[in-house]
Amino acid sequence: MSHRIYNFSAGPAVLPESVLEEAAQGVREINGSGMSILEVSHRGKDYEAIHADAETRLLRVLGLDPTEYAALFMQGGASQQFAQVPQNFLKPGQVADYVVSGDWGAKALGEAKFYGDPREAASSKADKYSHIPKDFTASAGSRYVHITTNNTIEGTEYFVLPDVGETPLVADMSSDYLALKRDYGKFALAYGGAQKNVGPAGVTLVVARKSFLATANADIPKIYSYNTFLENRSLFNTPPTFAVYVVGLTLKWVEAQGGLGAVEAVNRHKAALLYNTLDLLTPFYQPTVTDKSDRSLMNVTWRLADESLEPELLAASKKAGMDGLKGHRSVGGFRASIYNAFPEAGVRALADLLRDFANRKG
Amino acid sequence: MSHRIYNFSAGPAVLPESVLEEAAQGVREINGSGMSILEVSHRGKDYEAIHADAETRLLRVLGLDPTEYAALFMQGGASQQFAQVPQNFLKPGQVADYVVSGDWGAKALGEAKFYGDPREAASSKADKYSHIPKDFTASAGSRYVHITTNNTIEGTEYFVLPDVGETPLVADMSSDYLALKRDYGKFALAYGGAQKNVGPAGVTLVVARKSFLATANADIPKIYSYNTFLENRSLFNTPPTFAVYVVGLTLKWVEAQGGLGAVEAVNRHKAALLYNTLDLLTPFYQPTVTDKSDRSLMNVTWRLADESLEPELLAASKKAGMDGLKGHRSVGGFRASIYNAFPEAGVRALADLLRDFANRKG
Repeated sequence: MSHRIYNFSAGPAVLPESVLEEAAQGVREINGSGMSILEVSHRGKDYEAIHADAETRLLRVLGLDPTEYAALFMQGGASQQFAQVPQNFLKPGQVADYVVSGDWGAKALGEAKFYGDPREAASSKADKYSHIPKDFTASAGSRYVHITTNNTIEGTEYFVLPDVGETPLVADMSSDYLALKRDYGKFALAYGGAQKNVGPAGVTLVVARKSFLATANADIPKIYSYNTFLENRSLFNTPPTFAVYVVGLTLKWVEAQGGLGAVEAVNRHKAALLYNTLDLLTPFYQPTVTDKSDRSLMNVTWRLADESLEPELLAASKKAGMDGLKGHRSVGGFRASIYNAFPEAGVRALADLLRDFANRKG
Repeated sequence: MSHRIYNFSAGPAVLPESVLEEAAQGVREINGSGMSILEVSHRGKDYEAIHADAETRLLRVLGLDPTEYAALFMQGGASQQFAQVPQNFLKPGQVADYVVSGDWGAKALGEAKFYGDPREAASSKADKYSHIPKDFTASAGSRYVHITTNNTIEGTEYFVLPDVGETPLVADMSSDYLALKRDYGKFALAYGGAQKNVGPAGVTLVVARKSFLATANADIPKIYSYNTFLENRSLFNTPPTFAVYVVGLTLKWVEAQGGLGAVEAVNRHKAALLYNTLDLLTPFYQPTVTDKSDRSLMNVTWRLADESLEPELLAASKKAGMDGLKGHRSVGGFRASIYNAFPEAGVRALADLLRDFANRKG
């Protein structure tokens, strides 16, 4: 690439350069097969090896036992999972609990209403989602508790998973998939679009406890059933082969970094650089997540005390070779998405810019 | 690429070399942006231009008026459309007619049963789907008639669309999208996975008459509603950006060939080469589609009179640098998928091999 810019986009987002290089080669030709990765049959040996490797690697990276858990490659992103989870696990009159820690959690709850009786177990909406709501009790007979592990728009993240007792815990992990070590065995099902930390847009990564899938509704269209994907190893219909291929390359990269523990350490270091800068320059900058223990390692959000200066800061960032810093259209301000592959040098460059701007304008 | 093989796969399938070359470059960097096409935001200017261009170009190539029709980029392939069509257009007790011309049409009918009262209007199953069933009448009050324009497994194709009067015509066009000129304005809605003629697996191309979409059910989850995609120009959630990008490149290639008329002429020529060879060498070879007027331009299917010779022919084809000739696992025999980008030289090479094999073994 001629010049690499600092891409702070919330997703699709920055990927490791080595992954991009190998993916570009795969688009030319895969495994000396005389075919592009875009052209090989999903039932041929080249793709089969890629698919099986990605399944195995995803569970291994998350520390999940393949006899207990399955890795599924689906489509439609988290938005489709918002519908598929209740479609598979709720029936009219059945209850599920939703912890609403941001806009995406609210959307998940909205889609569940078509299938059963979801309840808002807790919400931090009244506080503009500036923290993770922690106090709640699962409803009696609840089919599952749904959380959003990282709130891309609002910049909060779960670092301690809620204790939900025997109720299955279901999570939208779209924006912190592969970002940190957790006890992933606490999830009955966790899903996420790949396009933040794991690959290109177009594949949804689902890991699920097989015993939980065994409790899913049977009387739904085949294509919407997790069990169809489980029984056919995500090959019931044509999977998004290229996206799965890139996910496999990224998983290899994560393992080469030393796994999730090593990736998390780098992510914590990068996030601290930025939050420390913002905190030191408060009140000129106003970090929007006031509960520091809930601050996301992935999406750092802030406003300027003088909002009229925001266009000028945005312009300065573009001039400095940075892209994607504008906050989500629903909240405004700034958001620096610093996913796994985002380089520390880019975080330092942004911190320098923020200091310089505050010195000049503050 | 070191050596290009002849890839007869039914899909994912062969794409134009120039498209692959440009796509590989896009994976390295798009538009000198300092970012890969895999990394750019779906709401940024680089992707926005790609998205808008692909929408416009798809309608133009199909000869559809953009004031009357919309092009939508969805996910989940035809298999998900099998559910989404009835989910959007049927309610319990409402009728739709399905013409079952192959295994995929039967699957579409199966998923529709979850939403309404679909009827098998006609079927050629009793004849092993060896022809397109042409005689049927749409049911009174039918919400739509569903057909499969090309039967990938069985090797048949519609060359004359059925007259369904005022009933909306819905089509699965997965395996002959962009393969020939038709009056696409006869369709109320036509969908297809991209992975035969149009791009990589992972994007579903839908063209739909806006007045038909206006009659869709409103009380369904947002992500399953065609109108969500219409109202948000397929940007309600993150689209499969890379797949849409490659679709755009392939559409440009189709236009550079001279459009669908020119592409169809080449396809007819290639298919005739192969069918003529098989017909001349019958009964050694047994083309499975006996009604010649229904023979697919895309998927040419045959068996050997002496089935015990089939493994030997398959081995000879592999030795000659050909891949993907094994018939679908549900029917056996042979299938040569010769989509738009499949080179005439490869068809000639296969015809030579078939002649040589018949001479040696016949």
